[in-house]
Amino acid sequence: MLDLVRRYVPVLDWGRRYDRNAFSNDMIAAVIVTIMLIPQSLAYALLAGLPPEAGIYASIAPIILYAIFGTSRALAVGPVAVVSLMTAAAVGQIAETGTMGYALAALTLAMLSGAILLVMGIFRLGFLANFLSHPVIAGFITASGILIASSQLKHILGISAGGHTLVEIVHSLVTHVSETNPITLVIGVVATAFLFWVRKGLKPLLRKLGAGPRLADIATKAGPVAAVFVSTLAVWWLGLAEKGVKIVGDVPQSLPPLTMPSFSPELLTTLAVPALLISIIGFVESISVAQTLAAKKRQRIDPDQELIGLGAANLGAAFTGGYPVTGGFARSVVNFDAGAETPAAGAFTAMGLAIAAVALTPLVYFLPTATLAATIVVAVLSLVDLSILKKTWGYSRADFVAVAATILLTLGFGVEVGVSAGVVLSIGLHLYKTSRPHVAEVGLVPGTQHFRNINRHAVETHPELVTLRVDESLYFVNARFLEDLIQNRVAEGSRVRNVVLMCSAVNEIDYSALESLEAINRRLADLGIGLHLSEVKGPVMDRLKVTHFLDELNGKVFLAQYDAWVALAGAAGSKAAE
Amino acid sequence: MLDLVRRYVPVLDWGRRYDRNAFSNDMIAAVIVTIMLIPQSLAYALLAGLPPEAGIYASIAPIILYAIFGTSRALAVGPVAVVSLMTAAAVGQIAETGTMGYALAALTLAMLSGAILLVMGIFRLGFLANFLSHPVIAGFITASGILIASSQLKHILGISAGGHTLVEIVHSLVTHVSETNPITLVIGVVATAFLFWVRKGLKPLLRKLGAGPRLADIATKAGPVAAVFVSTLAVWWLGLAEKGVKIVGDVPQSLPPLTMPSFSPELLTTLAVPALLISIIGFVESISVAQTLAAKKRQRIDPDQELIGLGAANLGAAFTGGYPVTGGFARSVVNFDAGAETPAAGAFTAMGLAIAAVALTPLVYFLPTATLAATIVVAVLSLVDLSILKKTWGYSRADFVAVAATILLTLGFGVEVGVSAGVVLSIGLHLYKTSRPHVAEVGLVPGTQHFRNINRHAVETHPELVTLRVDESLYFVNARFLEDLIQNRVAEGSRVRNVVLMCSAVNEIDYSALESLEAINRRLADLGIGLHLSEVKGPVMDRLKVTHFLDELNGKVFLAQYDAWVALAGAAGSKAAE
Repeated sequence: MLDLVRRYVPVLDWGRRYDRNAFSNDMIAAVIVTIMLIPQSLAYALLAGLPPEAGIYASIAPIILYAIFGTSRALAVGPVAVVSLMTAAAVGQIAETGTMGYALAALTLAMLSGAILLVMGIFRLGFLANFLSHPVIAGFITASGILIASSQLKHILGISAGGHTLVEIVHSLVTHVSETNPITLVIGVVATAFLFWVRKGLKPLLRKLGAGPRLADIATKAGPVAAVFVSTLAVWWLGLAEKGVKIVGDVPQSLPPLTMPSFSPELLTTLAVPALLISIIGFVESISVAQTLAAKKRQRIDPDQELIGLGAANLGAAFTGGYPVTGGFARSVVNFDAGAETPAAGAFTAMGLAIAAVALTPLVYFLPTATLAATIVVAVLSLVDLSILKKTWGYSRADFVAVAATILLTLGFGVEVGVSAGVVLSIGLHLYKTSRPHVAEVGLVPGTQHFRNINRHAVETHPELVTLRVDESLYFVNARFLEDLIQNRVAEGSRVRNVVLMCSAVNEIDYSALESLEAINRRLADLGIGLHLSEVKGPVMDRLKVTHFLDELNGKVFLAQYDAWVALAGAAGSKAAE
Repeated sequence: MLDLVRRYVPVLDWGRRYDRNAFSNDMIAAVIVTIMLIPQSLAYALLAGLPPEAGIYASIAPIILYAIFGTSRALAVGPVAVVSLMTAAAVGQIAETGTMGYALAALTLAMLSGAILLVMGIFRLGFLANFLSHPVIAGFITASGILIASSQLKHILGISAGGHTLVEIVHSLVTHVSETNPITLVIGVVATAFLFWVRKGLKPLLRKLGAGPRLADIATKAGPVAAVFVSTLAVWWLGLAEKGVKIVGDVPQSLPPLTMPSFSPELLTTLAVPALLISIIGFVESISVAQTLAAKKRQRIDPDQELIGLGAANLGAAFTGGYPVTGGFARSVVNFDAGAETPAAGAFTAMGLAIAAVALTPLVYFLPTATLAATIVVAVLSLVDLSILKKTWGYSRADFVAVAATILLTLGFGVEVGVSAGVVLSIGLHLYKTSRPHVAEVGLVPGTQHFRNINRHAVETHPELVTLRVDESLYFVNARFLEDLIQNRVAEGSRVRNVVLMCSAVNEIDYSALESLEAINRRLADLGIGLHLSEVKGPVMDRLKVTHFLDELNGKVFLAQYDAWVALAGAAGSKAAE
């Protein structure tokens, strides 16, 4: 019982060994992360179409719940760019931004995501995330980055625009571009340029000035805080809000409120598919970050427990005014680099954010949204990596097709269509590849007991014997292929008396393939041709033994292919391949 | 150009060699098949919810078009039980039986099916049918047989009832059972009992009386014709139609009419998914029959050309008053047994049916629908084979789950849900299996150069060396599994200095797996552990060579696993496994 509790609540494990040293390291990390998270949380809430405080609320309860249930020591949970975009896409279909219905739908989406993640964790369904191939994820993240960056241009131009696909966004921008507010544009462009410079130029500069690498790193990450501070000050000082510069405005001074998601069956049904996609994308993003950081310290991540941790975090977001969250790359890396030792660092960060929510929100009243948009643009453009197209093109056409389709469909039809199509396509391409496995007709390398492809090597063959080596497991997708192949091969060579299937690369034979083998056996028997197997692996043979196939087999099972050759071609003469 | 025409129009090939002998054989087969097809066509039209003549029309143009474009010498194309049921399910959702809209929707469904099959054929997408595993097909056919048989009980009872799932059908039957017409019931029960006896008892009897096996076979197949003849005579003679026995009634005396399917985008959209399912199920059924018959004569079937043949047949049905058709098992076997030599037999059958449509339809005026229902019940019950449950249970749990789910979902939610769920489930189960491949940690069999599983054999191992043999191709579904596995294995054994992946059963490494290997390599390098590969297959190695992976590899690629052992464990001491 206690073991079960401990399995699902990892805090009981590391919490008992918590000491003063770990405490002070966690505390320092928490302060750094808190400062960095404030502008980021406000910005992602803006991206999700929610009021700015939602981003802060979504960082508090989720962080604490993840600290209790998660297994990663360094993962920082909260709003992230891609999930915020997916939230906007899902919720935007059912309510107008800024309405009560919109916020309610976002809470409901978080609740559904949390429930899905929790169920997946309890039933140990973490493997479902594996159905997303790396190229599909890479393509999806790149396309999302482009969508997010272009969706933020409206804030930098100071205009109202919308759209969930690239065409819609660009069309909307072009329609409204004449309404551009020049001062907003200046703020937006300066902030963007500054943030790009911080990313590219500040770190080398600091290093040159003699700063340590860790300090230089953290100073670089603090760029958005500086941009927020300066632009807020400028707007307040110069009274730019009266000149049409959009500002964040009133943010309630309050701890995260208790909120109630909707349980309307209609809303739940509408949001089910988006919630599933958000859960899986969020899980994949989170687990890769967690794995990368854990590996550096030889720590272990339990993917199924991670699902439970993220599920709890999302349920927490649903009931405390947030929206769907996951483990973010940028914030986790800061947390890790700042020296966080245990999930307690997350809890301290949550406290810092809670204090900020209560005490500091008036300070962001004059913060221009253009600055927040600039932080988003600069952050997401680092996600855009079109080199994946070139890399996959060189390595495998199937992977290239999957990544290209995912990018185009995400840009053209939005995030949900893009990622779904990517998954379906990569599974389809995999099945297609295995549906036409490599099959080599083999012959004996003279003077040895080895068998090689007759088309590539000078080997001995026998006119009455055909030996086929199948380089793939036999299962339903390629079962008929094998039937056709053998039927055609036998129809060609009417002198053939025996067919040997060499099974050294066959890791499995499923029921469909078994029936195909039975059909092949019956058809060959009708023609007076023997069917033999060789080099069948142990587990495959164990399965075949419980069926009638071996009794009905119109031939033998040979342990080694050479035994088959000796038995079937040895007695008669053999001829060298021309 | 001529080659291209000949490829797509096989009649040009066999037609040139057609002679008097083939002609007389084809003629005899055609007469036998025509007689058998009349009651069957009427019955299946009834099952599809269409007027009886639709069944005959659906047998004429499609047979001729298949004779021109198909590759099977013996396949007989026309209405079949399962496709008729699927037609009723699809069309029943949008129109009432007997209305103009219903017939129009059936024509449109045939047109869509034809177009889908044709496109699949032209783009050589026949492999898509492979995504239906044998257990899913077996489960689907069995469940469809049960649905069809139970849906015909209303005709045998002489009541009006409906429903597309087992629960609906049974509920409807129970509600209306009090309206049973006793005379209809007698006709239905007698006809059913007679037809069962013909199937089970007539053939042995005829053989005992000295008839040849072929004659006995054909006489058995003529059972339905006898039942139709006798029951029609009885209804006419005794005036049973006035006593409430439902009869076929007026069937127009006409050649197949020219008809126009609907091109309404709304209707096409609604019917798209059912048409796709009908196409694939029809294709799978047809191709298995064709393959089985072709194998007996060492003939070849071209699956992609078959798609074109079936596509043309369905388009033919759409424009001549029919509904979706495919190659039927029963009629094709009769055709084959009756000695059909070429597709011309089909053309002659079509002529026979055309004559019947013009001249003989008044003769079926008094034919009771109960008799037709009896022929359907007896025909489809031979499709029901629950032994597939037991067979798959013994062989593979995954296959059992797929077949059981397909049966239950087809019975419970209808044909479309059943077959779709079966496909999704069998693909999902396959991916699940390969997502957790068998990985063996191996050691050296003392005194040899062979390596075996350390848990099964007494082998030598080395405390600083871990060798893992992966028995599966590495691709996105199992890429993360490998990462986790190696990370956990290394976290356990802190003395490990080198990890070798033995790739003898790895037929492919896709881009996701490549990235996982890169991540593993980086993480191991951070820990000062070497990563090595051994026994990489040629095609896999060719791919890896175009990437940077081999340059960055923190270890070596060994041709043979023994070389790796000598290099990595040979210098230091090795210890026998405890």
